[in-house]
Amino acid sequence: MSKHFLRQFFELESSTYTYLLADLTTKEALIIDPVVNTVERDAKIIQQLGLQLRYALNTHIHADHITGSGKLKTLFPGCQSIISNVSGAKADIYIKDGDLIKIGESGKTPIILECRSTPGHTNGCTCFIWHDYGAIFTGDTLLIRGCGRTDFQQGNADQLYTSIHTKIFTLPEYYKVYPAHDYTGQTCSTILEEKKYNPRLTKLREEFIDIMTNLKLCYPKQIDKAVPANLLCGLQNDIE
Amino acid sequence: MSKHFLRQFFELESSTYTYLLADLTTKEALIIDPVVNTVERDAKIIQQLGLQLRYALNTHIHADHITGSGKLKTLFPGCQSIISNVSGAKADIYIKDGDLIKIGESGKTPIILECRSTPGHTNGCTCFIWHDYGAIFTGDTLLIRGCGRTDFQQGNADQLYTSIHTKIFTLPEYYKVYPAHDYTGQTCSTILEEKKYNPRLTKLREEFIDIMTNLKLCYPKQIDKAVPANLLCGLQNDIE
Repeated sequence: MSKHFLRQFFELESSTYTYLLADLTTKEALIIDPVVNTVERDAKIIQQLGLQLRYALNTHIHADHITGSGKLKTLFPGCQSIISNVSGAKADIYIKDGDLIKIGESGKTPIILECRSTPGHTNGCTCFIWHDYGAIFTGDTLLIRGCGRTDFQQGNADQLYTSIHTKIFTLPEYYKVYPAHDYTGQTCSTILEEKKYNPRLTKLREEFIDIMTNLKLCYPKQIDKAVPANLLCGLQNDIE
Repeated sequence: MSKHFLRQFFELESSTYTYLLADLTTKEALIIDPVVNTVERDAKIIQQLGLQLRYALNTHIHADHITGSGKLKTLFPGCQSIISNVSGAKADIYIKDGDLIKIGESGKTPIILECRSTPGHTNGCTCFIWHDYGAIFTGDTLLIRGCGRTDFQQGNADQLYTSIHTKIFTLPEYYKVYPAHDYTGQTCSTILEEKKYNPRLTKLREEFIDIMTNLKLCYPKQIDKAVPANLLCGLQNDIE
């Protein structure tokens, strides 16, 4: 029976995955990419499991939904928000490449996440690597058989290609890939699968840049509301 | 690195979870509750991973979607369909309470699923228990904080209560619960959580029956198409 807990949640409107991680010895928990619409669902589980939520992490400033970090902080006063130092967003703790986020340090089975800076979708994108579990939470940097778009929010296809190839594909191939979104009902992948079968990332750099430049995607429906709110932990309306 | 593989998939229209299990030593695989709409997605993964699909299992005759078993059999000629002997559906192999389904027997790490008959939602409902992994695939018998309805297809609330309490809640509390559906973005639960927090199953039998009798649910949109098709492995149109 594992002393570690990982639970994946799905937010249907924006197809976002939220992850709840906990050390069951100390009951300390953290959440990755919570969505404001589903905070009550997540909070209920946290309470039912008797967990103490220490951190709410965002992989980046999302353009398609409003983060639940601020609302979670009001529900769990001990919870601190975490985001990249170059994201430009308000947070309690700023992280940079190589930093470690730890919970359960007072027990024997702490959870340690390595922060790996992966700019390209946005300049503040960060992946969180749970080496003891063999998993990476990739945000929008790497999706299952896809990747985040690079046509807004400081997006840069060349930089994204470098980030994925040097910061993600260098991990052991059996590591699980947990993205921030999937639109096809896939919940998880592995480094091996993405290296072999990601239709964009198996291309050479120039072809990848060409693909990303010519995606012709619609302007994101939520971006004008989501980005300003997410710069303020998703609590813009409360602050105004 | 595990020798066993479990991947959860989601079908958005009917909110169905499909599960792909594989023994990575022998590459043998089985799939639980595939949906016809997403067979191509599932088949692609099976092929990419180089798996040999031996069995397509259904927990019961679904009323809300058409099974992908028949279509998978045409794509993977070695695949055999499996369902309960009392379901009334066509299948290659019929199972009953206590039967074991095995894959990877020629290797050192076979996957063994115990079939446990859990009538109540339908009379042929069967749960599959993977003891080595500590997980149960509950179909519609037990959902996350809910359970399958009992107002059609030989449904019987009294019988469902008995099935869940005697066949599922008697498992170790840390066992993971993987249902056939969730409508709230939850992907997984545990026996402990459902025993403590399932709003229906924490009630006494009489109250449970009362709740189930008064749900006043709509007639399922797909039932008149899905049930006749599912009696024939989801291939009714091909057979007619």
